[in-house]
Amino acid sequence: MHGFFTIISRAEFEALLRGFAPLDAETVDLAESAGRVLAHDLIAPHDWPLLARSCMDGFAVNARDVFGAGESNPGYLECVAALSIDKLPDIVLNPGECARIATGGVLPEGADAVVMVEHTQAMQDEIVGGTIEIRKSAAPFDNVMQRGEDARKDATALPAGTVLRPQEIGLAAALGFEEISLVRRPRVGILSTGDELIEVGATPRPGQVRDVNTHTVAALVEQAGGLPVPYGIIKDDLESLGRALATAIAENDAVLLSGGSSIGVRDLTVQAIEAMEDAKILAHGVAISPGKPTILGRVGKKPVLGLPGQVTSALVVVHVLVLPLLRHLQGDPAAFSPTCRCLRKAQLARNVASKPGREDYVRIRLEERPGQPPLAHPVLGKSGLLRTIVQAHGLATIPADSEGLYADALVDIWIV
Amino acid sequence: MHGFFTIISRAEFEALLRGFAPLDAETVDLAESAGRVLAHDLIAPHDWPLLARSCMDGFAVNARDVFGAGESNPGYLECVAALSIDKLPDIVLNPGECARIATGGVLPEGADAVVMVEHTQAMQDEIVGGTIEIRKSAAPFDNVMQRGEDARKDATALPAGTVLRPQEIGLAAALGFEEISLVRRPRVGILSTGDELIEVGATPRPGQVRDVNTHTVAALVEQAGGLPVPYGIIKDDLESLGRALATAIAENDAVLLSGGSSIGVRDLTVQAIEAMEDAKILAHGVAISPGKPTILGRVGKKPVLGLPGQVTSALVVVHVLVLPLLRHLQGDPAAFSPTCRCLRKAQLARNVASKPGREDYVRIRLEERPGQPPLAHPVLGKSGLLRTIVQAHGLATIPADSEGLYADALVDIWIV
Repeated sequence: MHGFFTIISRAEFEALLRGFAPLDAETVDLAESAGRVLAHDLIAPHDWPLLARSCMDGFAVNARDVFGAGESNPGYLECVAALSIDKLPDIVLNPGECARIATGGVLPEGADAVVMVEHTQAMQDEIVGGTIEIRKSAAPFDNVMQRGEDARKDATALPAGTVLRPQEIGLAAALGFEEISLVRRPRVGILSTGDELIEVGATPRPGQVRDVNTHTVAALVEQAGGLPVPYGIIKDDLESLGRALATAIAENDAVLLSGGSSIGVRDLTVQAIEAMEDAKILAHGVAISPGKPTILGRVGKKPVLGLPGQVTSALVVVHVLVLPLLRHLQGDPAAFSPTCRCLRKAQLARNVASKPGREDYVRIRLEERPGQPPLAHPVLGKSGLLRTIVQAHGLATIPADSEGLYADALVDIWIV
Repeated sequence: MHGFFTIISRAEFEALLRGFAPLDAETVDLAESAGRVLAHDLIAPHDWPLLARSCMDGFAVNARDVFGAGESNPGYLECVAALSIDKLPDIVLNPGECARIATGGVLPEGADAVVMVEHTQAMQDEIVGGTIEIRKSAAPFDNVMQRGEDARKDATALPAGTVLRPQEIGLAAALGFEEISLVRRPRVGILSTGDELIEVGATPRPGQVRDVNTHTVAALVEQAGGLPVPYGIIKDDLESLGRALATAIAENDAVLLSGGSSIGVRDLTVQAIEAMEDAKILAHGVAISPGKPTILGRVGKKPVLGLPGQVTSALVVVHVLVLPLLRHLQGDPAAFSPTCRCLRKAQLARNVASKPGREDYVRIRLEERPGQPPLAHPVLGKSGLLRTIVQAHGLATIPADSEGLYADALVDIWIV
């Protein structure tokens, strides 16, 4: 059956990938949570801020006292205190009074706004006890963060499915979460098959090649937040492959078979998957180029993917299909959204032809031009050469219904 | 001196940051090298590929034998062997002969091209010994990777300064590098100053706030490839700060002072830096908003940065100034290039005003629209609120010479 599959579209393949359930939750130290996904709603244990606080260095005032103040019509208030940043104010502002306050300081009773220090002038050397000239009016709550403006007690501060960026980690810290419940990172078993393969440390005899795919695929898995678990080189026979596959499936959340490139290996991969308990081949071929011979299987509830043997093709398949799967297993609701891709607009330097009926991913080298979008050069050369992906900054996508792209067209280059 | 600095432009600040030398080299396992930067040229120890190999599954031929072949004018060759993927071919192709070959297989003597299996038809059940119909012509080297096409012995395969993506890791693996010489990752000491600060695990009394900045800044440092080393909360006095700073400088390649927000802390930071041996304040204020009160010092050969106290401002300063510094310390030649930023074009939903003379970074929430660039909504709310950066997908940059951006304008949103 080699070479002839029932090809499905990328969208159909993605629908199959979405069928795998996200992983379960685990408790993780907040310091280890960057880029990961909240398993449950994060409920605020208290209001945040706890009290009204100043956003600026300046003077706490009652807005009524500075109504109409301006450069040509300043107001004058008596400064009754310089408030300490770490203590509750022990004063009450009376009409005509103000208090020195720092960014983050708690507003005293009687104050409802802050005038920035830049819009004030102390009339005496000593600030406390002296008169402050106020050159700008303030409305109530100007430069003041109100109680609960960031989070309300018992309300959802961050919903399940939130990807934790540094700012979300900051909010979780503000609310006192030292640990946090996240969807597990998928452990991804990586098997390289191929009788011609040798370890990276070995010296190839003519005809042998080093195991490039394990390293490339592992780096990609890590990039998507997965935990790569390499199983090394597996011999091209059903027994070796079956044994290694059974182990990898038992020990991981997903398995990538990669590296073998001989014709028989694809059939072998299918046979090995089908020989597992509760296994099914879900797809055998996808209408993308490179990447057509990709295999998707299910063993129990776990995905098993057979990647094309050439590393240049495997890289595209991992970017297009596997990285979204790994984000999906981590609970990222945007896993399959193209908005997750980092794209740059560039101008094609030459025509690029494409066969309709499949989505083409063309390697592109960008040439920066001042004041203009970069020029996008398709990288020429045999598809299997590593050089062609090393020289590329990204990929241009040619939709399945297109016969190609024209020179000078502005296209989105997916930076990879 | 609080509140009044000599403000320099972002470009001037960057020029000062470039003055710090990249770190020294270290030897790293190839599996740990993703995203890092080559310290020295990677010299190929041998040609790669070692021999001419097929890029496709098909038949190895001599191009002369299939000259002019086509669908309506097929050629016929005798298949003399099915070549093994892991062995050198032990045959020589004579005129009129071909051999079955797999992707990656070594070409036998007498062959100079490969015809893809899709363009052939076996005339008998047994392939070896049978006749193969060839339906497409081939030029010499068609579907063949030639010896040394990826890398030539003793030539530079990857130059110093290359950022290692999965594909570069693949090339290094192909050439047999189990270990690789990379520029060190900077260890970055993080000090939070502020008498109002408490640990994330503690319960705030009114007036106290948890140490948000350490966690946020540490996550950002890691994002840039640095190794964050948190020193916890430091009291707002010169002795405590000086002692902590001396330790952090001794133990790290760079130090970030962060978290304190009271007015006096900025002066304290300057004094503490100046009190170190061989120290100099290089900048005190930069024309970006938020981020104006940023301090840059040099102690020995190490950079020390004082970040604004509000986490929302600190986040912008780290993105705009610190992450490029950390990439620069790691030897990334593109560290300060805006091409490193992931940008999305979006259409502004409303006018955004800006003060000329400073570069403004406006928080933007994107609203996706099918078939159109997303709508960019400036996030409203007090600048100090964490909510404003949690709700934002990115930042719009308003240049220093602009008074603002107009609604409907297409702008680049920097995804952060």
